Amino acid sequence: MSIRIGIYGYGNLGRGVELAIKQSPDLEGVGVFTRRNPKTVQTLTGIPVFHIDDAIRMQDKIDVMILCGGSATDLPEQTPYLAQYFNVVDSFDTHAKIPQHAKNVQAAAEQAKTTALISAGWDPGMFSLARLYSSAILPNGNEYTFWGKGVSQGHSDAIRRIEGVVDAKQYTIPLETALQAVRNGENPTLATGEKHERECFVVAADGADKARIENEIKTMPNYFADYKTTVHFISLEELKEKHAGLPHGGRVIRSGATGVNGEHKHVIEYSLKLDSNAEFTSSVLAACARAVFRMNQEGMYGCKTLFDVPPIYLSACTREELLEKLL
Amino acid sequence: MSIRIGIYGYGNLGRGVELAIKQSPDLEGVGVFTRRNPKTVQTLTGIPVFHIDDAIRMQDKIDVMILCGGSATDLPEQTPYLAQYFNVVDSFDTHAKIPQHAKNVQAAAEQAKTTALISAGWDPGMFSLARLYSSAILPNGNEYTFWGKGVSQGHSDAIRRIEGVVDAKQYTIPLETALQAVRNGENPTLATGEKHERECFVVAADGADKARIENEIKTMPNYFADYKTTVHFISLEELKEKHAGLPHGGRVIRSGATGVNGEHKHVIEYSLKLDSNAEFTSSVLAACARAVFRMNQEGMYGCKTLFDVPPIYLSACTREELLEKLL
Repeated sequence: MSIRIGIYGYGNLGRGVELAIKQSPDLEGVGVFTRRNPKTVQTLTGIPVFHIDDAIRMQDKIDVMILCGGSATDLPEQTPYLAQYFNVVDSFDTHAKIPQHAKNVQAAAEQAKTTALISAGWDPGMFSLARLYSSAILPNGNEYTFWGKGVSQGHSDAIRRIEGVVDAKQYTIPLETALQAVRNGENPTLATGEKHERECFVVAADGADKARIENEIKTMPNYFADYKTTVHFISLEELKEKHAGLPHGGRVIRSGATGVNGEHKHVIEYSLKLDSNAEFTSSVLAACARAVFRMNQEGMYGCKTLFDVPPIYLSACTREELLEKLL
Repeated sequence: MSIRIGIYGYGNLGRGVELAIKQSPDLEGVGVFTRRNPKTVQTLTGIPVFHIDDAIRMQDKIDVMILCGGSATDLPEQTPYLAQYFNVVDSFDTHAKIPQHAKNVQAAAEQAKTTALISAGWDPGMFSLARLYSSAILPNGNEYTFWGKGVSQGHSDAIRRIEGVVDAKQYTIPLETALQAVRNGENPTLATGEKHERECFVVAADGADKARIENEIKTMPNYFADYKTTVHFISLEELKEKHAGLPHGGRVIRSGATGVNGEHKHVIEYSLKLDSNAEFTSSVLAACARAVFRMNQEGMYGCKTLFDVPPIYLSACTREELLEKLL
């Protein structure tokens, strides 16, 4: 019997979940829930569409609801609300607000005896796991998270708000010198601006003052001022042709020492290179839905994160297969 | 209150566990157990030494026994035996025999209500986790494990058995071309010999026929015949000076595709670069002992692997710290 999945929200993430479910024979997409008029929404794989107001009524048809809204306003409301009725998975990614979100969700899920897994994806998510495992194994060490090469939508948006900019795409790129110092076990102290550079592809309006635009970008506080920033002016055609995708990725590196006097160095590196940020995140969410269903069956109620999930619950394979082939 | 650890066997792995415990304030080394006369054994950090025959009598003084024997003959006997009396962790690494070992240990641990975690280390262990997580997230993909650059003790031993060889060290090195093809998402089909090359540093006896030795190495079935193999003859002094350590490492790479037609490629890579194979393995074992203690407290009895361990149990940090700082 397959695990029945609901998809709550149908943007990039929701579509990614729909596609991820299609790759997993043990998961079945039961419905997409949208704020729009369901008749105007066409799903990629034919999963039926419902209005979000109809979700609660479908409680007995859905084993796990995957929440595909945004972290700014959707999830802080939706996750605690829906955890009263469903096992849920979300990708809440505002790092500083995770503890509060966890508390809100815990209260709802504990009472309802549902299982609610928050902050799944790649960061938070797989990168968090890389940080936890590597720091547990090498307590005497330092840890570094690098992002990129990839598109930062927040930084691209910031450029687009500058007068005279038609469109823009910003890539966050890890600095090779910083990466090498970390991999060599030099344990450097690095501010974010010393780990990354920023490359901007900008389409300027006809007659716009490019020197002023470039200066406004490079001096923008928080976003660019502390970084080595490069600005390329290109045509709209080139932007659409060469910079249409939303690739991302990054790496978590921990370097640590063991031995009588720390004489042996070790480097653990976990890296991701993703053509589609949203579809990878969605793939993590789908695997987490499988785990959440099983955890709930075993009575593991309340708010969970990937830290709490026995890895075996994420896999569609049997225990015997895993011990024989993957261990 | 700290978790009281016993160390069963005191070779490279046992010494590594002793040093790992010293890095972890919540773990306390209670005793080293040896087959030798305890009076002849001096520990690195002053942990008292006992004869293995005295272990069972210390059942109420030890929370977790870490087994530091070998997979060929020690662990198949010791793990099921000691799991009758203690929570245990072992590093059983004969991949083909893991399912049988798991069955034997399960029978003992289930009956005694102990928790017995087998096959911890880096492969099996952290590499197994990398394989499981990445295949659960990207079911439509291929997976590759590369070993090295590192010393293979089995291959070094094989060279030493050749007539006229005084000493030798063999490095297993991943082939850069194969690595690149995998990272590019080309999904190549690769035999082990197409993923690695072998570099040998050999000390020949005075007057020995080097051409014959080199030929015997390069044509040795299973060990070298299927690999690109390079042989360097060096002096004993150079071998001792430059090739004394036992570094190792490797990487698990999964490349997978998502999207409507698999149009988006993703690459997940987990890599280790280790100065000391044994000490890194020991560090994993120590973290696992922490997890095993907690799992046992929660009633999770029987034979477990890292696949079954909620990652949070491996960490010495509190849940609040982890949600705030690492997630």
